Amino acid sequence: MFEAANVIQKVSREDFDRVAGPLRMDLLRLQDQIKSEDFAVVIVMAGAATAGKAEALDLLNEWMDPRWIVTRAYGPPSDEERERPAYWRYWRDLPPRGRIGLFAGSWYHAPVQDYAYGRTSKAEFLAALEKIAAFERALADSGTLILKFWMHLDAAHQKKRMKAMEKDKHESWRIGKQDWEHFKHNAAFEKANQTAIQKTDSEKARWVVINGADRRFRSLAILTTLRDTIAEHLQARREYREVAAEVRERLARQRAAELSKIAASAAELEKESRTAARKPGRGKRAAAAKVTRKGALQPLTVLDRLDLGATLDDAAYVEALKESRAALGELCRDLHFRGKSAVLVFEGPDAAGKGGAIRRLTSAMDARDYRVIPVAKPTEEEAAQHYLWRFWRHIPRAGRIAIFDRSWYGRVLVERVEGFAQLEEWRRGYAEINDFEEQMTASGIVLVKFWVHISKEEQYRRFKEREANSYKAWKLTAEDWRNRAKWNDYALAVNEMVERTSTRVAPWTLVEGNDKRFARVKVMSTVCDALSKALKPAKKAKA
Amino acid sequence: MFEAANVIQKVSREDFDRVAGPLRMDLLRLQDQIKSEDFAVVIVMAGAATAGKAEALDLLNEWMDPRWIVTRAYGPPSDEERERPAYWRYWRDLPPRGRIGLFAGSWYHAPVQDYAYGRTSKAEFLAALEKIAAFERALADSGTLILKFWMHLDAAHQKKRMKAMEKDKHESWRIGKQDWEHFKHNAAFEKANQTAIQKTDSEKARWVVINGADRRFRSLAILTTLRDTIAEHLQARREYREVAAEVRERLARQRAAELSKIAASAAELEKESRTAARKPGRGKRAAAAKVTRKGALQPLTVLDRLDLGATLDDAAYVEALKESRAALGELCRDLHFRGKSAVLVFEGPDAAGKGGAIRRLTSAMDARDYRVIPVAKPTEEEAAQHYLWRFWRHIPRAGRIAIFDRSWYGRVLVERVEGFAQLEEWRRGYAEINDFEEQMTASGIVLVKFWVHISKEEQYRRFKEREANSYKAWKLTAEDWRNRAKWNDYALAVNEMVERTSTRVAPWTLVEGNDKRFARVKVMSTVCDALSKALKPAKKAKA
Repeated sequence: MFEAANVIQKVSREDFDRVAGPLRMDLLRLQDQIKSEDFAVVIVMAGAATAGKAEALDLLNEWMDPRWIVTRAYGPPSDEERERPAYWRYWRDLPPRGRIGLFAGSWYHAPVQDYAYGRTSKAEFLAALEKIAAFERALADSGTLILKFWMHLDAAHQKKRMKAMEKDKHESWRIGKQDWEHFKHNAAFEKANQTAIQKTDSEKARWVVINGADRRFRSLAILTTLRDTIAEHLQARREYREVAAEVRERLARQRAAELSKIAASAAELEKESRTAARKPGRGKRAAAAKVTRKGALQPLTVLDRLDLGATLDDAAYVEALKESRAALGELCRDLHFRGKSAVLVFEGPDAAGKGGAIRRLTSAMDARDYRVIPVAKPTEEEAAQHYLWRFWRHIPRAGRIAIFDRSWYGRVLVERVEGFAQLEEWRRGYAEINDFEEQMTASGIVLVKFWVHISKEEQYRRFKEREANSYKAWKLTAEDWRNRAKWNDYALAVNEMVERTSTRVAPWTLVEGNDKRFARVKVMSTVCDALSKALKPAKKAKA
Repeated sequence: MFEAANVIQKVSREDFDRVAGPLRMDLLRLQDQIKSEDFAVVIVMAGAATAGKAEALDLLNEWMDPRWIVTRAYGPPSDEERERPAYWRYWRDLPPRGRIGLFAGSWYHAPVQDYAYGRTSKAEFLAALEKIAAFERALADSGTLILKFWMHLDAAHQKKRMKAMEKDKHESWRIGKQDWEHFKHNAAFEKANQTAIQKTDSEKARWVVINGADRRFRSLAILTTLRDTIAEHLQARREYREVAAEVRERLARQRAAELSKIAASAAELEKESRTAARKPGRGKRAAAAKVTRKGALQPLTVLDRLDLGATLDDAAYVEALKESRAALGELCRDLHFRGKSAVLVFEGPDAAGKGGAIRRLTSAMDARDYRVIPVAKPTEEEAAQHYLWRFWRHIPRAGRIAIFDRSWYGRVLVERVEGFAQLEEWRRGYAEINDFEEQMTASGIVLVKFWVHISKEEQYRRFKEREANSYKAWKLTAEDWRNRAKWNDYALAVNEMVERTSTRVAPWTLVEGNDKRFARVKVMSTVCDALSKALKPAKKAKA
């Protein structure tokens, strides 16, 4: 694969000086355009030792406006980082839109090292590369321009350079024991690098392999590639927006005409009696799905199966709460000392009692151990990033608990129903969310997800109560009433959410919320079960 | 994950009858629209035993126009199929554009079975699912609408049904020993199915999970989903074409203006002297890359490094050819008896001598063992498929050799340079090709790829010779002269091709072709080496 990159080539000083000026102007002009664009640029700089990575980073910072560039290099993870999923630090460091992020080292470093030194198997290496591809795909799908440079140098030239640098008193500090150690494994590294490049080279996240022997050549190669790729991406994003603005509008009209035709063919039937009243199913009993007059099928959802009549009387409630609070307190202390962390997610319709349930949980916890993260509109800083970014940043460190009052599921709930996200965006969301949660659970985080549900009638009762009750009135907004109007759309969205994101590692718990006491106790005991299962794997295996 | 699908629901006969008529009309109308569209529809029908898969297939064939539907079901592979990569039969059976392909069993069957019965590890299972995802992604990227139905039934209902069917004298034949054997492993199957569905559920290849308990419900669910999804896809493809036709045109003008601005900034420098004459590099010696006046960098390519002066005198040629012919004959017989197959690929500029090299090869082979596949324009049948389809169909069975005179690399060579393929299409091509070749080599096929190269001057000499030589004149067309004009573009395309597709399992061999004798002998001996390496792995390991 490195046949092409092995071709050593030079650029004369004369040539370089001739094009340097205009090229620099082009880059500055393009960078200026990016600033007001809706995408970020991620540049990965990787390569062989002494092939000119560090210099290339300096060059980019020198040639472009450094105020809009963030350069990131990674050493061994800090304790803050080690206590979270491996990608946490990369997510944290992603550039917001309009900016350029330069990554040295990056997410490729550890997988390649581990494989080259024989610490991981081929299958593990391929799985790690697949994880990288998924990460880059998610960024690219959200519009990020990803460009990856591989600075290449064949073994003979590497060796020559390292020796030369060792002799140079100004450069010798650059060459350490580790470099020679690496060099001994050069063949293994070349094999690993080749596999990494080819398995993660895709149309949306391309690798550009550059021979690093000549400084002027590699500089021009990097800078012209960057210029042409940014120009191309600006063009593509403009096209994309043009489509969004113009063509979609016109085709929406066409589609409306289409649909009305479909509706018309069903119109004759409209006089016929409506479908028999739809009975909410309970337990496993079959119930009737609704078929609208226009021939749309509205199936029952997981929510229809909930027994919202479940209650708990006062005495039982007080007793159960007392018990589970004691158990939870114990478990959280244990969690803290064992350095495990947990993420609890609460979703549900307005006034379902999420807040109350959360307060019962936290009353059993040490305030230093947990954090409640109420999720509302993203801040400006958050809105300039991939939608998962603002959740990645809140992943708790070892021994801590993060409680999300609403969460990343907004993507497939409110953003879907209200049309804030495009169809392809929220559809893509399920896989992205599963991937995100898999990374959390794989790193040892206990993840518990609750959908606290109430009936439409119960919600109405609670809304009215809030209106009447001055100290609860602030809780009720016009938006709550608007959301309510889309009850059925939400039910379908919840159903699909459960279908696609209730995984083996992160299942949903549906909570019958009409009776607050019942709901709170169910939440408490579910969390207790999850924590004790995670903390006592040995016991569990015996059972 | 099956929480949602476990919700059993019914549709009343009255409801069903009311919407059936218009729904059927909608489907027929949509199918009629698809016929003239530029995409195919792939429907995968999978699910639990007795959940209604077979019935659903019947229903679709009954409700839609069966002339435009191909239904495919798969048993254990035939010997024809077993002798080729596993996906060979699925590629072969893909519907052409305008048609609907219904797949029962499909590419999911073997991976899920193998994992559920413990024949494969979790890592192998995940790798198989990743292969499925890549396959479906390639189809979706080329415009194919992929929709996957999972007919679900919980264990209790499955058992009840199977018992009921056994008692029914008309149905009992449907339930065999194997079904009960499967059922015993129901938990393992459910786990495997769940993983398969979630790992391969993507925006472009969605799974729709349907409860199969009620015949009318599942029929309506399938048919309305199909209707809505087709309507949505038609819309998306129209948008895509609108963009291609309208917006791109306008933005191309914008871009031209952009580029001329870039050019203008370099214009002042145009008076300066041109870059020093570019010296073709030989061996590993560094040579100068070309920098155009407008600041574009034209690097040297792998082709510049070829020593086109390599020759062989007559005596050496005759001797070497005789020897390698004997060796090759022996190896091909061995290949035949050992049931291994080989694929030889020839690419190179016009008049490079590909045909001559191929004839020297085949002269040593048994005519029943090899097939030369000259690749020109795709036939109408081929043009209606994914671009790789016409190469998949020619993969040889065990013991046979397929020789491609030009190949799937047309995608990243002629189609790229001539603009027949869109930028994103040929860029995607590299990964698709690597995947294709990996499947070949993984199934044991010996793959050898040649780029036979000549200098521009030598090509001119040969063209002139062909013009003068009446019995070779037919070989030379106006197109050959046109291609020649794009020599530099082709060189860059070849360079990138080698860079991205010369993999460890399928490396490129660059052949110095100015001297035909040298080229032919190099081709012969390279093929001999590859075959003997593949046939004598034990010996090789010892060495």
